[in-house]
Amino acid sequence: MKKIPEEFKLIEDIRRRFPPGKGLCLGIGDDAAVLRPVKGSLEVLSADLLLEGVHFEESWTSPRDLGWKSLAVNLSDLAAMGAVPGYALLSLALKRGRAEVFLREFLNGFKRCARRYGVQLVGGDLCRSASGTVIAVSVLGRVKPGKLRRRDAARAGQLLAVIGNPGESACGLELLRGKAKGHSRLKAAHLKPLPQLAAGRMLAAERGVGALIDVSDGLSSSAHQLARAAAVGFELAEDRLLVSAALRRGAAVLRREPLSFALHGGEDYGLMFTVDAGTEQALAKKLWRKLRLRLCVLGQVVGGGRGVKLLRRDGSKLELEWGGYAHFGG
Amino acid sequence: MKKIPEEFKLIEDIRRRFPPGKGLCLGIGDDAAVLRPVKGSLEVLSADLLLEGVHFEESWTSPRDLGWKSLAVNLSDLAAMGAVPGYALLSLALKRGRAEVFLREFLNGFKRCARRYGVQLVGGDLCRSASGTVIAVSVLGRVKPGKLRRRDAARAGQLLAVIGNPGESACGLELLRGKAKGHSRLKAAHLKPLPQLAAGRMLAAERGVGALIDVSDGLSSSAHQLARAAAVGFELAEDRLLVSAALRRGAAVLRREPLSFALHGGEDYGLMFTVDAGTEQALAKKLWRKLRLRLCVLGQVVGGGRGVKLLRRDGSKLELEWGGYAHFGG
Repeated sequence: MKKIPEEFKLIEDIRRRFPPGKGLCLGIGDDAAVLRPVKGSLEVLSADLLLEGVHFEESWTSPRDLGWKSLAVNLSDLAAMGAVPGYALLSLALKRGRAEVFLREFLNGFKRCARRYGVQLVGGDLCRSASGTVIAVSVLGRVKPGKLRRRDAARAGQLLAVIGNPGESACGLELLRGKAKGHSRLKAAHLKPLPQLAAGRMLAAERGVGALIDVSDGLSSSAHQLARAAAVGFELAEDRLLVSAALRRGAAVLRREPLSFALHGGEDYGLMFTVDAGTEQALAKKLWRKLRLRLCVLGQVVGGGRGVKLLRRDGSKLELEWGGYAHFGG
Repeated sequence: MKKIPEEFKLIEDIRRRFPPGKGLCLGIGDDAAVLRPVKGSLEVLSADLLLEGVHFEESWTSPRDLGWKSLAVNLSDLAAMGAVPGYALLSLALKRGRAEVFLREFLNGFKRCARRYGVQLVGGDLCRSASGTVIAVSVLGRVKPGKLRRRDAARAGQLLAVIGNPGESACGLELLRGKAKGHSRLKAAHLKPLPQLAAGRMLAAERGVGALIDVSDGLSSSAHQLARAAAVGFELAEDRLLVSAALRRGAAVLRREPLSFALHGGEDYGLMFTVDAGTEQALAKKLWRKLRLRLCVLGQVVGGGRGVKLLRRDGSKLELEWGGYAHFGG
């Protein structure tokens, strides 16, 4: 047999490391992957890009963490639909030089995340990059028709709540960039986020839960997106916002307001949702008992599409800017 | 309502231009798209990357053609499975400066391709690039269980055949790079390839057809991949290879062998397949009558995994290299 090009060897390696599992008719190595849909389920599709120089730098992240994160951020979108993950496609453009070493470590991280959340890698694309590393992942999950949770289901009178620790990831990123020592919790929040799949499914099963979104763009951005989708407004209370001791310490080192991280920091991959008033305490107990997650009520949904307002501790009311990470900001 | 960030405005524009159609429960604008699978069908998934500086240069292609091509190359993978396309995800990283103009034109081309082949754009990702434009597309199609055509189904005694015009795209690319005038057929083959979806479905419905693959990596590469997957060999005859007058003229301008384009040139998006000897003439007639496509028999399948051999016009036998575009070539 003639020698085969490097690209196909790498694909054969990946194929060996990700053998086809349940529900899959044909995995890596053909023109496309083939799978058997689950009867009675809807399918949920999402995709995300991670680019060197935009989303990460090699100076502060490892190929292994990138592998984890590139899948985890996609799974967070499935969590926000109440979906169960199934399959992933991975397209990678690698830099010259040490492509094989990078790929091996990247796939270690990717596989760890895939195993933990029950995802099969079934295909993708592999090529050289002209400049930085490019990672494009897409995922397919499933959800029962009645369990689907959309962004546009907020209703006046509901409460707005969040799980996760908004701001920790953005603060961790600043600490990584500044090469600060310590602060491992904040750095891990940025480098190795945990998609809230179990929480997403639990929330989607609750009749009292309305709209559901992940907080990948930051708390204020997610709130604005929910408000806009349902043409409602939100009134958040500053003193309800959870600011962890870790975030307080990290922000102090950076001489920044912890509140600005909590409100506008992105890439936290918690979940934000609306919930019928009166049902939130039972839900909070269940989230804590089963998943050790803290439900934080931020405020309430008000009618009339009046944007997002923040009630400050001093009693003043502030129009909350649409902050968070925006790629095309002016 | 507060002003919303540019990124979300762009996504709302895209959403308006790609309204949800049949089978779709939820399209662009939520955390993920939701669709209803077709009963009794398997699902087919594929993804491809197109990078500026690797796959294209702005000096010789337009955003509109890129929009077309980025979807078309993915659909070619579905064609090679005998699948019917359904949905696409589009992730784009745009350069600073004229992102909106680029996006508008890109989406015009993408939409034209989507309409022609019955694809719904249902989601994706949008961000800034640090350097060149990045395009990542993934597609979902469907196929009936009996109609699926895999790469590993070549059997000794079958014939190896191809539809399309291998070499024209690679020659077109060289002419584009050299800023040659004219040669519109070759240039179009590179810039605006046609995925052979109807042919793929027709081939998949033929009992005599075995393995099926697209020729995106070049004829020799596709042949090697088919041979390797089924552990068979091929003997191709040089005088069977179609070299169009257009390819002959283009190669002459470049002072290159037309045969080397035909054998090793990539990105043609034709289809290569094996077919039972004796059934090829009826199939050729049908392909011509219904789709105006010419079936070209290249040679035959031989047992024993003996690689790919080329019988030259002078009677000599040549081991055919695994050529075509390889990203990680030594």
